[in-house]
Formats: sequence, C-alpha cells, structure tokens
Amino acid sequence: MTSERYQKGMDKLKELTVADENSPTGHMDIGEGFRDIAPDLQRYVVEFAFGDIYARPGLSNKQKVLTTISALVAQGTPQIGMHVVTGLNVGLTPDEIAGCIMHLIPYVGFPRALNALRVAQEVFAEQGVAISQPDAAQ
Amino acid sequence: MTSERYQKGMDKLKELTVADENSPTGHMDIGEGFRDIAPDLQRYVVEFAFGDIYARPGLSNKQKVLTTISALVAQGTPQIGMHVVTGLNVGLTPDEIAGCIMHLIPYVGFPRALNALRVAQEVFAEQGVAISQPDAAQ
Amino acid sequence: MTSERYQKGMDKLKELTVADENSPTGHMDIGEGFRDIAPDLQRYVVEFAFGDIYARPGLSNKQKVLTTISALVAQGTPQIGMHVVTGLNVGLTPDEIAGCIMHLIPYVGFPRALNALRVAQEVFAEQGVAISQPDAAQ
Amino acid sequence: MTSERYQKGMDKLKELTVADENSPTGHMDIGEGFRDIAPDLQRYVVEFAFGDIYARPGLSNKQKVLTTISALVAQGTPQIGMHVVTGLNVGLTPDEIAGCIMHLIPYVGFPRALNALRVAQEVFAEQGVAISQPDAAQ
Amino acid sequence: MTSERYQKGMDKLKELTVADENSPTGHMDIGEGFRDIAPDLQRYVVEFAFGDIYARPGLSNKQKVLTTISALVAQGTPQIGMHVVTGLNVGLTPDEIAGCIMHLIPYVGFPRALNALRVAQEVFAEQGVAISQPDAAQ
Amino acid sequence: MTSERYQKGMDKLKELTVADENSPTGHMDIGEGFRDIAPDLQRYVVEFAFGDIYARPGLSNKQKVLTTISALVAQGTPQIGMHVVTGLNVGLTPDEIAGCIMHLIPYVGFPRALNALRVAQEVFAEQGVAISQPDAAQ
Repeated sequence: MTSERYQKGMDKLKELTVADENSPTGHMDIGEGFRDIAPDLQRYVVEFAFGDIYARPGLSNKQKVLTTISALVAQGTPQIGMHVVTGLNVGLTPDEIAGCIMHLIPYVGFPRALNALRVAQEVFAEQGVAISQPDAAQ
Repeated sequence: MTSERYQKGMDKLKELTVADENSPTGHMDIGEGFRDIAPDLQRYVVEFAFGDIYARPGLSNKQKVLTTISALVAQGTPQIGMHVVTGLNVGLTPDEIAGCIMHLIPYVGFPRALNALRVAQEVFAEQGVAISQPDAAQ
Repeated sequence: MTSERYQKGMDKLKELTVADENSPTGHMDIGEGFRDIAPDLQRYVVEFAFGDIYARPGLSNKQKVLTTISALVAQGTPQIGMHVVTGLNVGLTPDEIAGCIMHLIPYVGFPRALNALRVAQEVFAEQGVAISQPDAAQ
Repeated sequence: MTSERYQKGMDKLKELTVADENSPTGHMDIGEGFRDIAPDLQRYVVEFAFGDIYARPGLSNKQKVLTTISALVAQGTPQIGMHVVTGLNVGLTPDEIAGCIMHLIPYVGFPRALNALRVAQEVFAEQGVAISQPDAAQ
Repeated sequence: MTSERYQKGMDKLKELTVADENSPTGHMDIGEGFRDIAPDLQRYVVEFAFGDIYARPGLSNKQKVLTTISALVAQGTPQIGMHVVTGLNVGLTPDEIAGCIMHLIPYVGFPRALNALRVAQEVFAEQGVAISQPDAAQ
Repeated sequence: MTSERYQKGMDKLKELTVADENSPTGHMDIGEGFRDIAPDLQRYVVEFAFGDIYARPGLSNKQKVLTTISALVAQGTPQIGMHVVTGLNVGLTPDEIAGCIMHLIPYVGFPRALNALRVAQEVFAEQGVAISQPDAAQ
C-alpha cells in the first residue's frame, strides 16, 4: 500500500508543511476526513496530487504555491487559506502572497481578489506575520 | 495625456516585451484595436493594469507572469498565448511555463490544462524554444 | 392556476421526494421562500424545471439526479445537498453518489470534488446511510 | 495623494451611497479593511473602479448597478448584497432588482438565481422595502 | 401546440427583433437548428425564456438586454453577439452597450471584457452603427 | 514503464473506445500530442484519469460518461465531443445523451446547453445515429 509514489507524495508533503508525529501532513488537508465515503481519496491526493504532480521538477516550491494560489483565486474556491499557509512554510513572504492576489485584480476582477485577500489576512494574523511596509501610504 | 502612470505602464510594457519603434508595446495587446468603441480602454490597460498593478513591487516579473498564466488557465480564457510570450521574454523557461500548467491539473482538471498546453505548445513552436528534456521517458 | 404543467411538475416532485401532507414537495426547495419578492418563481420552478424538463422522457430519474449533481459539482454551487437527498430517494446508492463525485476529479479538480464530498458526507450522516465497503483499504 | 481621480471616485461613491461624516463611503466596502496587507488597494478601488470606470459617461447609475448585479449573479460571487443596497440608493425599485435576477434564470440557471434572490431578500428586509405587488398570484 | 405562452413568447420576440415573414424571429436563435435531436427545445426557448421570463413586467426591454449582456460577459459564453443586435433593436445606443462592457472591467477583469468588446465591435460594424464620440481622446 | 496502473488505464480505454492496432486508444485524446512539452502527461492521463479514477467500481460506464458530459456542459469546456463519442461506444443512446444536456438547462442556463447540443449534433451526424422520435411535435 505504501507505494513508491505514496512515499514520494508524503515526502513532498513534509517539505511543504510543518509536520510532527501527531500530524504527519501538518496543516494540509489530504482527504483523511473522507475515509468513510471515499476510502481511496487520500491515496489519490498523496500519490497523484503530491507524488506525481507536486513532486515534478521544473518549478520551485515557491513557484508551485504561487501558481496554486493564483488558480484558486480565479476559481473562487474556498481552499485558498491552506495554500497560503503552505506558501509561508516554503518561504514565500507575505508581500509575495498578498502581491500575487493584488496582481490578479486586472485578470479576475476586484470581488474575487477581495475574497482571497480576506483569507490571506486571516492566515497572516493566525501565523503572526506581516507585509514589510504596511504603513506605506502609496 | 501621457500621465506619470501612463509612462510607468509603458515602461513596464517595455520590460515585458521585445518592442521596437513600429510596435512600442511588442506582442502585447493593450486594447489599441478598440479605439472606435472604447477610446479610453487603452489608457486603462496601460495606466491601471501595467502602471498601477504590474509595476507594483513585491513580485518579480517572472512571478507575475506565472501568476497571470495560472489564473487564465483556471478561467479558461483564450488570452493565455500572449502571456506565454511575455513569460519567455522575462526569462521564464519553457520548463517553467509548461510546468506551471501541468502543476494545475489537480486544481483545475485535465480539460483546462490540456487547452492551455495546446496554446503554450503553439507559442513554443513559433518562438523556436523547447523544454530541456523532451525525450525523458518518465 | 394549477395548469397541466404545474400538476405534471408536482407529480414529478412527488416521485423525487418523500412528501407528506405538511410538506408536499418534501425536502425540495421549489422557491416557496421567495413569494414576497418573486411571486412567480415557484410556478416557474414547478412548471418549467420539473413539469417540462425533469419530466422529459429519455433518462431515468437516477440518471437525471446524477446528471444534476455532476453539473453542480462543476459549478461549485452550494445546492448539491438537496440533490444528494433526491438521489437517495430515487434509489441511487451512496456508492453511486460518492462515485459520481470521485469520478469528476480529473475533470473539475480536487478542490471542487472535496467541497462536494463534504456536502454528500453530511447528507449520508443525516440519512443514516453508508457506502458498501468503507473499510476497503484500496 | 488625493489625486483628481481619487476625488472623482469619492464623489461617485457619494452619489451611490447614503454617506455621513463617520462613514464617508456609506455601505460600500472600498477595501479599507486591507490596509495592513495591501495598503494601495483602497486607492485602486476608489481611483480605478469608481474614479475611472464608475464615473464614465454613457450609462446612468441605475444601469450601472443593474449591470454590476447581473455580472455578480452570473459569477456567483458573494458581494451582491452591497450592490443591491447601492441599487436602492440610486433609485432602482425592488421590482427592478428582483426582476433583474429573475430575468437571468434562462442564462445562468436556477441555482445561481436563487442564491442571488436570497441575498436581495435579506437586503430588502433590512431596508424595509418591498416589491409593488407581492400578492400577485401569477 | 401554439399555447398562450408560446404566442406570448413569439410576440416578445417580435418586439426584440426586426422580423419578416421569412424569418419570424429575426436574428434570434431560438433553437430551431436542434429539431432533430431536441424537438422540444424550441418550445422551451419560446415559452419559458421569452413567454414567461422575457415578458415579465418590472424591467424595460433595454434593461433586460443590458442585464443579459452583463451576465454573458461574466460567463464568457460566446452568445453575446446575438444580444448586442437585440440591444440595438430595442433602442440601446452603442455607447450604452460598449459602456456596459467597459463598466464590468472591475468585476470580471480585462480578458473577459476584451473578448466581449471584440464581439460588440463586429456587430456594430455589421450594423453600421458607432459610438457618439469615438475620437474623444480621454 | 507499463505499470499495473498504466495497463489498467489502457484496458479501461479499450472498453470505452473502438480501438484498432493503429490507434490503440481509439478516438480518445490521451495527451499524446504533448510529448514534446509535457512528456509525462500521457502517463498521468492513462494511469490516473483512466487507471485510478475511470476504473473505480461503483458506477457503470454509462453513468460515468453521463457524469463526465454533465460536468463539461456546466464548465463550458470544448472537450464534450470526445465524450459524446465515448457515450455512444458504451451504449448510451442519442436520446440519453441529448436528454442529459436538455436536463441541465435549469441548472446551467440555455447558452451552455445550446453550445453542448451543437457539439452532440455534430457527433451524432458523423456517427450516423439519431434520437428515437425526432419528429415528435412535443
């Protein structure tokens, strides 16, 4: 059951999260809560989404998280927060994460950007991080 | 009319494109074709999208193009090609651009990713560029 | 007012729901709550959505509910739960309903599938039903 | 900092809202809550969205609000309520606002229309307004 | 077969189009081309979309077309052109139609607005109409 | 390289298509055209989309194709045609396929349904199939 791809996915998840023994995949929801109605879901998340795709060469982890957040901002799906945490874990600064959402305004419009900023703001507050020049009266 | 923001937007456009005297904004469509029905559109594209937003600090040009492409892949809008050219201009490799689209499969599904890969493939062919290991039988 | 189409829609609704005298359309929201701002809405729901479309020949009720759920999963609209109840009423098994959502992962991505599974899971719990082999360590 | 465009945007916002000294932009969320992570956002909302675009000639305020609500209904974004308030402020009747959402059923489907009607209904109740013939048994 | 609702829908279609004997519904596609695979489709278009919904009181025809165009711009569906023709038929000016699309930029982003402007521009050229001040160097 | 999952995916593809030696996956686009820019894509399509997901128990092939088509109708992605062919291959009747698209009108609106019917109509014509009662003047 712990196939090579599963192991590869779990290794990638460890890179992306601050994991400990009790929570081996950290803050990342990998579908564990759906064992009762979709017992194979977690395997697909780990093996395919993380073992096959997230572990692909070509992009850095920072690039991968920015790419992920951008797509979710455009979709308007509510999972953005989890990926903002991942972004901070792999070294994206709050400026880069907020900057990514701001950058998307001309492409997705203000409403979707504002919804995403709200989620990022909550994560930044929970994690105790801030952008570099919040007082900059631009 | 050539406000400071307009100039800032045009400067950013020069960074993003391979421009010459005949085509000061290079391959980038900034809405010039709509002077007859929306004479102010081009100004908003240059001043707001490029002068205000694209010129923001916080992200590198490479990050900005990846972010843009990711959102357009998720939306399924047909403007991706123009931004793939921009990506190559600012130094993204074909591996990074194709890698960004591949990375989005778990988030947007295969159909939208395949549509985007088709566009990227055409741009790569036109520009005579290729990924680093196309023969890699992964 | 109770046109032939209205009656046809109400008959179809009875097929799809577990109705009683107090709640003639069962769990199905047919827009009754909007009489104050859109007094004709309920009529359109019953006559058009159920009398004209849902009562069309060609597909079984089971097929119609699967089709409906699939479209709502792709849209990301929050009405999925109501249609999961309908699915159980017309004889879809929890395996078929969860299987439909799992099947859509390659087409709509994990985030929209996970959102839909969450809703299905809640409905299954409320209705006291389960998939056939939840322990299957696939 | 209070550029001509900023002033133009604030003037337009005053037209659209019932503002007072404590809340100069009334019910309208112009991004003030994001000063900590996107200090320039509010400026773009006021200058671009209101100063450049909302202040364009060609459409009446009533037309602009109907247009805005229609796009948000189609997107399924949750910001509709704020624009329903704006609609009432500029003189749209509850019949026109509810009528706009009802009109979109054939284009966006019932689920998105029902979600929007729910928001409009809440705003109408808060504002103490009603459609002209709620009892019309159509 | 020509129910009261069908007649009401056809009457509304005559209001919206420049019809003649050979083409009783003018430029409007009411699904006639699908008689072979969905023989009841045309009836639903005429009876429901036009007889029930488009004929509702509460909004003027001009408002209804603006509302329709706005939703289609947000969706990115390709049917916008047909409704731009309808808009001109019911008395919307090119300024109002182009203005509606421009107004949506902050809500849907530039790419969807540019796609819609392209369609409107083609229709305006075919119909030989123009906005009032195309030379306005704004 | 021909892993067990790859073989499982190819077996499923054979079930879904009319394959021959020259075209082992029949009409189905499995990403072969992208070997130059995404050499691992085909493997993911075969292994994950077909070997893992399409080969899951719980739904019949007919149900799986209906589910797929429904999601693509809602998305408005252009890949519907390929899946209509698959539907015919696994035994869905033209009535069921057209009926599925018609059934979605209340959920996705007429424009997306009409776009999908156009694609289905082309496939039916190419394959020389027809619905059972095209003359039914409903």
